[in-house]
Amino acid sequence: MHETEQETRQEDRLMVILSKGTLDMVYPAFMIATTGATMGKDVHMFFTFWGMNAVTKNTNANLKVAPVGNPGLPMPNILGMIPGMTSMATRMMKGRITKAKVPSIPEMIKTAKDLGVKLHACSTTLEVMGTTKDMLIPEVDDIVGAATMLELGQGGQIIFI
Amino acid sequence: MHETEQETRQEDRLMVILSKGTLDMVYPAFMIATTGATMGKDVHMFFTFWGMNAVTKNTNANLKVAPVGNPGLPMPNILGMIPGMTSMATRMMKGRITKAKVPSIPEMIKTAKDLGVKLHACSTTLEVMGTTKDMLIPEVDDIVGAATMLELGQGGQIIFI
Amino acid sequence: MHETEQETRQEDRLMVILSKGTLDMVYPAFMIATTGATMGKDVHMFFTFWGMNAVTKNTNANLKVAPVGNPGLPMPNILGMIPGMTSMATRMMKGRITKAKVPSIPEMIKTAKDLGVKLHACSTTLEVMGTTKDMLIPEVDDIVGAATMLELGQGGQIIFI
Repeated sequence: MHETEQETRQEDRLMVILSKGTLDMVYPAFMIATTGATMGKDVHMFFTFWGMNAVTKNTNANLKVAPVGNPGLPMPNILGMIPGMTSMATRMMKGRITKAKVPSIPEMIKTAKDLGVKLHACSTTLEVMGTTKDMLIPEVDDIVGAATMLELGQGGQIIFI
Repeated sequence: MHETEQETRQEDRLMVILSKGTLDMVYPAFMIATTGATMGKDVHMFFTFWGMNAVTKNTNANLKVAPVGNPGLPMPNILGMIPGMTSMATRMMKGRITKAKVPSIPEMIKTAKDLGVKLHACSTTLEVMGTTKDMLIPEVDDIVGAATMLELGQGGQIIFI
Repeated sequence: MHETEQETRQEDRLMVILSKGTLDMVYPAFMIATTGATMGKDVHMFFTFWGMNAVTKNTNANLKVAPVGNPGLPMPNILGMIPGMTSMATRMMKGRITKAKVPSIPEMIKTAKDLGVKLHACSTTLEVMGTTKDMLIPEVDDIVGAATMLELGQGGQIIFI
Protein backbone atom coordinates (compact mmCIF):
# COMPACT_ATOMS: atom_id res chain seq x y z
CA MET A 1 0.00 0.00 0.00
CA HIS A 2 2.64 2.43 1.10
CA GLU A 3 4.84 1.40 -1.81
CA THR A 4 2.08 2.06 -4.31
CA GLU A 5 1.50 5.51 -2.89
CA GLN A 6 5.19 6.30 -3.10
CA GLU A 7 5.31 5.17 -6.72
CA THR A 8 2.39 7.39 -7.57
CA ARG A 9 4.13 10.32 -6.00
CA GLN A 10 7.39 9.61 -7.86
CA GLU A 11 5.52 9.52 -11.13
CA ASP A 12 4.16 12.95 -10.37
CA ARG A 13 7.52 14.49 -9.59
CA LEU A 14 8.71 17.10 -12.05
CA MET A 15 12.21 18.58 -11.88
CA VAL A 16 12.78 21.55 -14.20
CA ILE A 17 16.48 22.39 -14.58
CA LEU A 18 16.95 25.90 -15.98
CA SER A 19 20.41 26.50 -17.44
CA LYS A 20 19.60 29.43 -19.78
CA GLY A 21 19.21 33.11 -18.88
CA THR A 22 17.19 34.45 -21.80
CA LEU A 23 13.48 35.33 -21.71
CA ASP A 24 12.64 32.80 -24.45
CA MET A 25 13.93 29.92 -22.30
CA VAL A 26 12.98 31.22 -18.82
CA TYR A 27 9.34 31.49 -19.90
CA PRO A 28 8.92 27.84 -20.95
CA ALA A 29 10.59 26.77 -17.67
CA PHE A 30 8.10 28.66 -15.50
CA MET A 31 5.13 27.82 -17.73
CA ILE A 32 5.84 24.09 -17.50
CA ALA A 33 6.54 24.34 -13.74
CA THR A 34 3.39 26.29 -12.85
CA THR A 35 1.21 24.17 -15.16
CA GLY A 36 2.59 21.00 -13.57
CA ALA A 37 1.90 22.36 -10.08
CA THR A 38 -1.68 23.25 -11.07
CA MET A 39 -2.11 19.62 -12.17
CA GLY A 40 -1.08 18.45 -8.69
CA LYS A 41 2.48 17.48 -9.54
CA ASP A 42 5.32 17.87 -7.01
CA VAL A 43 7.39 20.45 -8.91
CA HIS A 44 10.98 21.55 -8.27
CA MET A 45 13.12 24.00 -10.23
CA PHE A 46 16.92 23.91 -10.20
CA PHE A 47 18.67 27.09 -11.39
CA THR A 48 22.13 26.49 -12.80
CA PHE A 49 24.63 28.36 -15.02
CA TRP A 50 22.90 31.19 -16.94
CA GLY A 51 19.58 30.12 -15.42
CA MET A 52 20.75 31.73 -12.19
CA ASN A 53 19.83 35.08 -13.81
CA ALA A 54 16.16 34.22 -13.34
CA VAL A 55 16.53 34.25 -9.54
CA THR A 56 19.23 36.91 -9.13
CA LYS A 57 17.98 40.25 -7.77
CA ASN A 58 19.48 42.66 -10.30
CA THR A 59 18.74 40.61 -13.45
CA ASN A 60 15.48 38.89 -12.51
CA ALA A 61 13.07 41.54 -13.83
CA ASN A 62 15.19 42.49 -16.86
CA LEU A 63 15.88 39.30 -18.77
CA LYS A 64 16.57 39.68 -22.49
CA VAL A 65 15.86 37.86 -25.73
CA ALA A 66 18.93 36.98 -27.81
CA PRO A 67 18.50 38.00 -31.46
CA VAL A 68 22.09 37.22 -32.53
CA GLY A 69 22.52 33.90 -34.17
CA ASN A 70 18.89 33.00 -33.70
CA PRO A 71 17.62 32.31 -37.21
CA GLY A 72 14.21 32.03 -35.62
CA LEU A 73 13.98 35.82 -35.45
CA PRO A 74 13.21 37.58 -38.72
CA MET A 75 16.36 39.70 -39.02
CA PRO A 76 19.79 39.07 -40.51
CA ASN A 77 22.58 38.18 -38.08
CA ILE A 78 24.42 41.41 -38.75
CA LEU A 79 21.59 43.39 -37.13
CA GLY A 80 21.70 41.30 -34.02
CA MET A 81 25.08 42.75 -33.24
CA ILE A 82 24.23 46.40 -33.48
CA PRO A 83 24.10 47.58 -29.85
CA GLY A 84 20.48 48.09 -28.93
CA MET A 85 19.09 45.28 -31.06
CA THR A 86 18.91 42.91 -28.10
CA SER A 87 16.83 45.46 -26.21
CA MET A 88 14.70 46.14 -29.29
CA ALA A 89 13.99 42.42 -29.78
CA THR A 90 13.31 42.19 -26.05
CA ARG A 91 10.86 45.11 -26.09
CA MET A 92 9.13 43.63 -29.14
CA MET A 93 8.74 40.26 -27.42
CA LYS A 94 7.66 41.84 -24.12
CA GLY A 95 5.05 43.87 -25.98
CA ARG A 96 3.60 40.75 -27.57
CA ILE A 97 3.74 38.90 -24.24
CA THR A 98 1.80 41.69 -22.52
CA LYS A 99 -0.80 41.70 -25.32
CA ALA A 100 -1.21 37.92 -25.01
CA LYS A 101 -1.71 38.52 -21.25
CA VAL A 102 1.25 36.32 -20.30
CA PRO A 103 2.47 37.41 -16.82
CA SER A 104 5.99 38.84 -16.29
CA ILE A 105 8.79 36.62 -14.90
CA PRO A 106 8.53 38.10 -11.35
CA GLU A 107 4.76 37.46 -11.49
CA MET A 108 5.33 33.89 -12.71
CA ILE A 109 7.80 33.30 -9.85
CA LYS A 110 5.17 34.50 -7.35
CA THR A 111 2.54 32.21 -8.91
CA ALA A 112 4.97 29.28 -8.87
CA LYS A 113 5.67 29.82 -5.16
CA ASP A 114 1.94 30.15 -4.39
CA LEU A 115 1.37 26.81 -6.14
CA GLY A 116 4.06 25.12 -4.03
CA VAL A 117 6.87 24.96 -6.60
CA LYS A 118 10.23 24.77 -4.81
CA LEU A 119 13.11 26.91 -6.15
CA HIS A 120 16.64 25.56 -5.71
CA ALA A 121 19.85 27.43 -6.63
CA CYS A 122 22.87 25.40 -7.78
CA SER A 123 25.74 25.62 -5.28
CA THR A 124 28.51 25.03 -7.86
CA THR A 125 27.20 27.84 -10.08
CA LEU A 126 27.18 30.25 -7.12
CA GLU A 127 30.82 29.36 -6.41
CA VAL A 128 31.92 29.67 -10.05
CA MET A 129 30.02 32.94 -10.64
CA GLY A 130 31.04 34.42 -7.29
CA THR A 131 27.36 35.00 -6.44
CA THR A 132 26.34 35.07 -2.79
CA LYS A 133 23.00 34.11 -1.23
CA ASP A 134 21.98 37.73 -0.55
CA MET A 135 22.20 38.45 -4.30
CA LEU A 136 19.40 35.94 -4.93
CA ILE A 137 15.69 36.79 -4.68
CA PRO A 138 14.09 35.74 -1.35
CA GLU A 139 11.77 33.29 -3.17
CA VAL A 140 14.72 30.86 -3.55
CA ASP A 141 14.14 28.01 -1.07
CA ASP A 142 17.69 26.75 -0.75
CA ILE A 143 21.13 26.29 -2.30
CA VAL A 144 21.84 22.67 -3.19
CA GLY A 145 24.18 20.53 -5.29
CA ALA A 146 23.49 18.19 -8.20
CA ALA A 147 23.07 15.19 -5.88
CA THR A 148 20.16 16.81 -4.01
CA MET A 149 18.66 17.85 -7.35
CA LEU A 150 18.77 14.24 -8.64
CA GLU A 151 17.30 12.95 -5.35
CA LEU A 152 14.43 15.43 -5.52
CA GLY A 153 13.72 14.28 -9.08
CA GLN A 154 14.21 10.55 -8.32
CA GLY A 155 11.77 8.42 -10.29
CA GLY A 156 10.09 11.46 -11.83
CA GLN A 157 10.45 13.46 -15.00
CA ILE A 158 13.47 15.72 -15.46
CA ILE A 159 13.31 18.56 -18.00
CA PHE A 160 16.59 20.33 -18.83
CA ILE A 161 16.06 23.77 -20.35
CA MET B 1 -4.03 -6.59 -15.21
CA HIS B 2 -5.43 -3.44 -16.71
CA GLU B 3 -3.20 -1.42 -14.39
CA THR B 4 -0.10 -3.29 -15.57
CA GLU B 5 -0.95 -2.62 -19.18
CA GLN B 6 -1.44 1.04 -18.49
CA GLU B 7 1.91 1.24 -16.73
CA THR B 8 3.60 -0.40 -19.70
CA ARG B 9 2.06 2.12 -22.01
CA GLN B 10 3.10 5.05 -19.82
CA GLU B 11 6.67 3.79 -19.80
CA ASP B 12 6.62 3.83 -23.58
CA ARG B 13 5.37 7.38 -23.87
CA LEU B 14 7.81 9.85 -25.31
CA MET B 15 7.09 13.59 -25.40
CA VAL B 16 9.60 15.62 -27.43
CA ILE B 17 9.30 19.37 -26.76
CA LEU B 18 10.99 21.39 -29.51
CA SER B 19 11.76 25.00 -28.49
CA LYS B 20 14.54 25.77 -31.00
CA GLY B 21 14.20 26.74 -34.65
CA THR B 22 17.62 25.87 -36.05
CA LEU B 23 18.42 22.86 -38.23
CA ASP B 24 20.95 21.50 -35.72
CA MET B 25 18.23 21.19 -33.05
CA VAL B 26 15.20 20.35 -35.25
CA TYR B 27 17.05 17.32 -36.64
CA PRO B 28 17.71 15.62 -33.27
CA ALA B 29 14.07 16.24 -32.32
CA PHE B 30 12.70 14.43 -35.37
CA MET B 31 15.37 11.71 -35.29
CA ILE B 32 14.55 10.84 -31.69
CA ALA B 33 10.80 11.04 -32.37
CA THR B 34 10.81 8.83 -35.48
CA THR B 35 13.25 6.34 -33.92
CA GLY B 36 11.04 6.09 -30.83
CA ALA B 37 7.96 5.51 -33.01
CA THR B 38 9.77 2.77 -34.95
CA MET B 39 10.49 1.07 -31.61
CA GLY B 40 6.75 1.04 -30.82
CA LYS B 41 6.72 4.02 -28.48
CA ASP B 42 3.72 6.36 -28.25
CA VAL B 43 5.45 9.54 -29.46
CA HIS B 44 4.22 13.13 -29.25
CA MET B 45 5.97 16.34 -30.30
CA PHE B 46 5.14 19.75 -28.83
CA PHE B 47 6.32 22.77 -30.82
CA THR B 48 6.90 25.88 -28.72
CA PHE B 49 8.76 29.21 -29.07
CA TRP B 50 11.33 29.05 -31.92
CA GLY B 51 10.41 25.38 -32.44
CA MET B 52 7.23 26.63 -34.12
CA ASN B 53 9.40 27.36 -37.19
CA ALA B 54 9.59 23.63 -37.85
CA VAL B 55 5.84 23.44 -38.47
CA THR B 56 5.20 26.89 -39.97
CA LYS B 57 4.55 26.90 -43.73
CA ASN B 58 7.00 29.59 -44.87
CA THR B 59 9.96 28.55 -42.66
CA ASN B 60 9.51 24.78 -42.49
CA ALA B 61 11.60 23.85 -45.52
CA ASN B 62 14.21 26.59 -45.03
CA LEU B 63 15.54 26.20 -41.50
CA LYS B 64 19.05 27.53 -40.89
CA VAL B 65 22.12 26.61 -38.88
CA ALA B 66 23.38 29.35 -36.54
CA PRO B 67 27.13 29.92 -36.93
CA VAL B 68 27.34 32.99 -34.66
CA GLY B 69 28.40 32.31 -31.14
CA ASN B 70 28.59 28.61 -31.77
CA PRO B 71 32.18 27.68 -30.93
CA GLY B 72 31.32 24.25 -32.28
CA LEU B 73 31.66 25.58 -35.81
CA PRO B 74 35.21 26.09 -37.09
CA MET B 75 35.08 29.83 -37.80
CA PRO B 76 35.77 32.89 -35.67
CA ASN B 77 32.73 34.71 -34.26
CA ILE B 78 33.34 37.79 -36.38
CA LEU B 79 32.58 35.79 -39.54
CA GLY B 80 29.28 34.59 -38.19
CA MET B 81 28.01 38.11 -38.42
CA ILE B 82 28.83 38.85 -42.01
CA PRO B 83 25.49 38.66 -43.83
CA GLY B 84 25.41 35.45 -45.80
CA MET B 85 27.45 33.36 -43.39
CA THR B 86 24.36 31.79 -41.87
CA SER B 87 23.27 30.64 -45.31
CA MET B 88 26.81 29.45 -46.14
CA ALA B 89 26.99 27.40 -42.94
CA THR B 90 23.49 26.14 -43.68
CA ARG B 91 24.40 25.09 -47.23
CA MET B 92 27.55 23.38 -45.93
CA MET B 93 25.55 21.42 -43.36
CA LYS B 94 22.76 20.59 -45.82
CA GLY B 95 25.38 19.33 -48.28
CA ARG B 96 26.83 17.00 -45.67
CA ILE B 97 23.36 15.89 -44.59
CA THR B 98 22.44 15.00 -48.17
CA LYS B 99 25.70 13.07 -48.60
CA ALA B 100 25.02 11.14 -45.40
CA LYS B 101 21.55 10.39 -46.85
CA VAL B 102 19.73 12.01 -43.95
CA PRO B 103 16.23 13.04 -45.16
CA SER B 104 15.14 16.71 -45.24
CA ILE B 105 12.93 18.16 -42.46
CA PRO B 106 9.73 18.00 -44.58
CA GLU B 107 10.57 14.35 -45.37
CA MET B 108 11.20 13.62 -41.68
CA ILE B 109 7.83 15.20 -40.79
CA LYS B 110 6.11 12.95 -43.34
CA THR B 111 7.88 9.87 -41.94
CA ALA B 112 6.99 10.89 -38.38
CA LYS B 113 3.31 11.20 -39.31
CA ASP B 114 3.36 7.85 -41.16
CA LEU B 115 4.78 6.24 -38.00
CA GLY B 116 1.97 7.70 -35.88
CA VAL B 117 3.87 10.54 -34.19
CA LYS B 118 1.41 13.26 -33.10
CA LEU B 119 2.37 16.91 -33.73
CA HIS B 120 1.04 19.52 -31.27
CA ALA B 121 1.51 23.29 -31.62
CA CYS B 122 1.74 25.38 -28.41
CA SER B 123 -1.26 27.71 -28.05
CA THR B 124 0.60 30.35 -25.98
CA THR B 125 3.37 30.61 -28.59
CA LEU B 126 0.80 31.13 -31.35
CA GLU B 127 -0.77 33.98 -29.35
CA VAL B 128 2.57 35.62 -28.51
CA MET B 129 3.95 35.29 -32.06
CA GLY B 130 0.66 36.31 -33.67
CA THR B 131 0.67 33.10 -35.73
CA THR B 132 -2.66 31.68 -36.88
CA LYS B 133 -3.60 28.06 -37.55
CA ASP B 134 -3.59 28.48 -41.34
CA MET B 135 0.09 29.51 -41.18
CA LEU B 136 0.97 26.05 -39.84
CA ILE B 137 1.60 23.01 -42.03
CA PRO B 138 -1.42 20.65 -42.31
CA GLU B 139 0.52 17.83 -40.59
CA VAL B 140 -0.02 19.59 -37.23
CA ASP B 141 -2.66 17.56 -35.34
CA ASP B 142 -3.85 20.23 -32.92
CA ILE B 143 -3.11 23.38 -30.93
CA VAL B 144 -2.84 22.69 -27.22
CA GLY B 145 -1.54 24.25 -24.01
CA ALA B 146 1.15 23.12 -21.59
CA ALA B 147 -1.38 21.22 -19.46
CA THR B 148 -2.38 18.95 -22.35
CA MET B 149 1.29 18.49 -23.22
CA LEU B 150 2.08 17.33 -19.65
CA GLU B 151 -0.97 15.02 -19.66
CA LEU B 152 0.09 13.42 -22.95
CA GLY B 153 3.55 12.83 -21.48
CA GLN B 154 2.25 11.68 -18.06
CA GLY B 155 4.42 8.89 -16.65
CA GLY B 156 6.61 8.80 -19.73
CA GLN B 157 9.88 10.39 -20.81
CA ILE B 158 9.97 14.10 -21.65
CA ILE B 159 12.81 15.45 -23.79
CA PHE B 160 13.13 19.25 -24.01
CA ILE B 161 15.14 20.37 -27.04
CA MET C 1 10.45 -10.82 -8.27
CA HIS C 2 12.62 -10.54 -11.33
CA GLU C 3 10.23 -7.98 -12.77
CA THR C 4 10.42 -5.84 -9.65
CA GLU C 5 14.21 -5.84 -9.78
CA GLN C 6 14.18 -4.85 -13.40
CA GLU C 7 11.80 -1.98 -12.70
CA THR C 8 14.05 -0.72 -9.93
CA ARG C 9 16.99 -0.76 -12.27
CA GLN C 10 15.04 1.06 -14.99
CA GLU C 11 14.13 3.78 -12.52
CA ASP C 12 17.81 4.29 -11.83
CA ARG C 13 18.80 4.62 -15.45
CA LEU C 14 20.00 8.04 -16.52
CA MET C 15 20.69 8.90 -20.14
CA VAL C 16 22.39 12.27 -20.68
CA ILE C 17 22.25 13.41 -24.33
CA LEU C 18 24.81 16.14 -25.02
CA SER C 19 24.09 18.15 -28.19
CA LYS C 20 26.04 21.33 -27.36
CA GLY C 21 29.78 21.95 -27.68
CA THR C 22 30.32 24.89 -25.35
CA LEU C 23 31.91 24.70 -21.89
CA ASP C 24 28.81 26.08 -20.19
CA MET C 25 26.73 23.12 -21.44
CA VAL C 26 29.39 20.36 -21.39
CA TYR C 27 29.99 21.01 -17.67
CA PRO C 28 26.38 20.45 -16.55
CA ALA C 29 26.28 17.25 -18.65
CA PHE C 30 29.31 15.73 -16.91
CA MET C 31 28.34 17.06 -13.47
CA ILE C 32 24.90 15.45 -13.69
CA ALA C 33 26.38 12.22 -15.12
CA THR C 34 29.13 11.80 -12.50
CA THR C 35 26.80 12.78 -9.64
CA GLY C 36 24.23 10.25 -10.83
CA ALA C 37 26.91 7.53 -11.05
CA THR C 38 28.09 8.36 -7.50
CA MET C 39 24.50 7.84 -6.34
CA GLY C 40 24.51 4.35 -7.85
CA LYS C 41 22.59 5.15 -11.02
CA ASP C 42 23.28 3.35 -14.30
CA VAL C 43 24.48 6.37 -16.31
CA HIS C 44 24.96 6.67 -20.07
CA MET C 45 26.02 9.68 -22.13
CA PHE C 46 25.16 10.09 -25.81
CA PHE C 47 27.23 12.65 -27.73
CA THR C 48 25.45 14.12 -30.75
CA PHE C 49 25.80 17.20 -33.02
CA TRP C 50 28.02 19.86 -31.36
CA GLY C 51 28.28 17.66 -28.27
CA MET C 52 30.70 15.50 -30.26
CA ASN C 53 33.32 18.20 -29.53
CA ALA C 54 33.48 16.97 -25.94
CA VAL C 55 34.82 13.59 -27.04
CA THR C 56 36.83 14.60 -30.12
CA LYS C 57 40.62 14.55 -29.65
CA ASN C 58 41.54 18.00 -30.97
CA THR C 59 38.67 19.95 -29.34
CA ASN C 60 38.13 18.01 -26.12
CA ALA C 61 40.54 19.97 -23.90
CA ASN C 62 39.86 23.36 -25.53
CA LEU C 63 36.10 23.91 -25.37
CA LYS C 64 34.94 27.52 -25.39
CA VAL C 65 32.23 29.65 -23.79
CA ALA C 66 30.02 31.57 -26.24
CA PRO C 67 29.70 35.24 -25.28
CA VAL C 68 27.81 36.34 -28.42
CA GLY C 69 24.12 36.57 -28.03
CA ASN C 70 24.25 35.33 -24.49
CA PRO C 71 22.60 38.10 -22.48
CA GLY C 72 23.65 36.13 -19.43
CA LEU C 73 27.19 37.42 -19.84
CA PRO C 74 27.79 41.01 -18.72
CA MET C 75 28.91 42.48 -22.04
CA PRO C 76 27.04 44.01 -24.98
CA ASN C 77 26.52 41.80 -28.02
CA ILE C 78 28.81 43.90 -30.18
CA LEU C 79 31.81 42.89 -28.04
CA GLY C 80 31.05 39.23 -28.43
CA MET C 81 31.94 39.53 -32.06
CA ILE C 82 35.33 41.10 -31.75
CA PRO C 83 37.77 38.27 -32.49
CA GLY C 84 39.34 37.19 -29.23
CA MET C 85 36.30 37.85 -27.05
CA THR C 86 35.29 34.19 -27.05
CA SER C 87 38.73 33.23 -25.76
CA MET C 88 38.64 36.07 -23.19
CA ALA C 89 35.25 34.93 -21.88
CA THR C 90 36.55 31.37 -21.90
CA ARG C 91 39.70 32.29 -19.95
CA MET C 92 37.58 34.25 -17.46
CA MET C 93 35.27 31.30 -16.92
CA LYS C 94 38.13 28.80 -16.73
CA GLY C 95 39.83 31.01 -14.12
CA ARG C 96 36.70 31.00 -11.98
CA ILE C 97 36.23 27.27 -12.48
CA THR C 98 39.80 26.58 -11.32
CA LYS C 99 39.30 28.82 -8.26
CA ALA C 100 36.08 26.96 -7.39
CA LYS C 101 38.13 23.73 -7.70
CA VAL C 102 35.90 22.34 -10.44
CA PRO C 103 37.90 19.76 -12.45
CA SER C 104 38.65 20.26 -16.17
CA ILE C 105 36.60 18.45 -18.83
CA PRO C 106 39.31 15.78 -19.47
CA GLU C 107 39.46 15.20 -15.70
CA MET C 108 35.65 14.94 -15.50
CA ILE C 109 35.67 12.41 -18.36
CA LYS C 110 38.23 10.31 -16.47
CA THR C 111 36.11 10.48 -13.29
CA ALA C 112 32.98 9.58 -15.23
CA LYS C 113 34.69 6.51 -16.69
CA ASP C 114 36.06 5.47 -13.28
CA LEU C 115 32.50 5.66 -11.91
CA GLY C 116 31.21 3.40 -14.69
CA VAL C 117 29.53 6.01 -16.90
CA LYS C 118 29.31 4.72 -20.49
CA LEU C 119 30.16 7.14 -23.32
CA HIS C 120 28.37 6.64 -26.66
CA ALA C 121 29.06 8.61 -29.84
CA CYS C 122 26.16 9.21 -32.27
CA SER C 123 26.70 7.38 -35.57
CA THR C 124 24.63 9.84 -37.68
CA THR C 125 26.62 12.81 -36.38
CA LEU C 126 29.90 11.09 -37.27
CA GLU C 127 28.62 10.52 -40.83
CA VAL C 128 27.33 14.10 -41.24
CA MET C 129 30.45 15.70 -39.72
CA GLY C 130 32.83 13.38 -41.56
CA THR C 131 34.42 12.39 -38.25
CA THR C 132 36.03 8.97 -37.97
CA LYS C 133 36.44 6.77 -34.90
CA ASP C 134 40.17 7.48 -34.56
CA MET C 135 39.40 11.19 -34.14
CA LEU C 136 37.47 10.42 -30.95
CA ILE C 137 39.11 10.08 -27.53
CA PRO C 138 39.72 6.45 -26.46
CA GLU C 139 37.31 6.81 -23.52
CA VAL C 140 34.36 6.56 -25.95
CA ASP C 141 32.84 3.09 -25.46
CA ASP C 142 31.06 2.75 -28.79
CA ILE C 143 29.36 4.37 -31.76
CA VAL C 144 25.61 3.82 -31.76
CA GLY C 145 22.41 5.14 -33.32
CA ALA C 146 19.38 6.79 -31.76
CA ALA C 147 17.60 3.41 -31.38
CA THR C 148 20.34 2.02 -29.13
CA MET C 149 20.36 5.28 -27.18
CA LEU C 150 16.61 5.03 -26.52
CA GLU C 151 16.96 1.35 -25.56
CA LEU C 152 19.73 2.13 -23.08
CA GLY C 153 17.52 4.82 -21.54
CA GLN C 154 14.34 2.71 -21.64
CA GLY C 155 12.18 3.34 -18.59
CA GLY C 156 14.71 5.74 -17.09
CA GLN C 157 15.27 9.47 -17.11
CA ILE C 158 16.52 11.17 -20.28
CA ILE C 159 18.17 14.58 -20.04
CA PHE C 160 18.77 16.44 -23.32
CA ILE C 161 21.43 19.14 -23.00
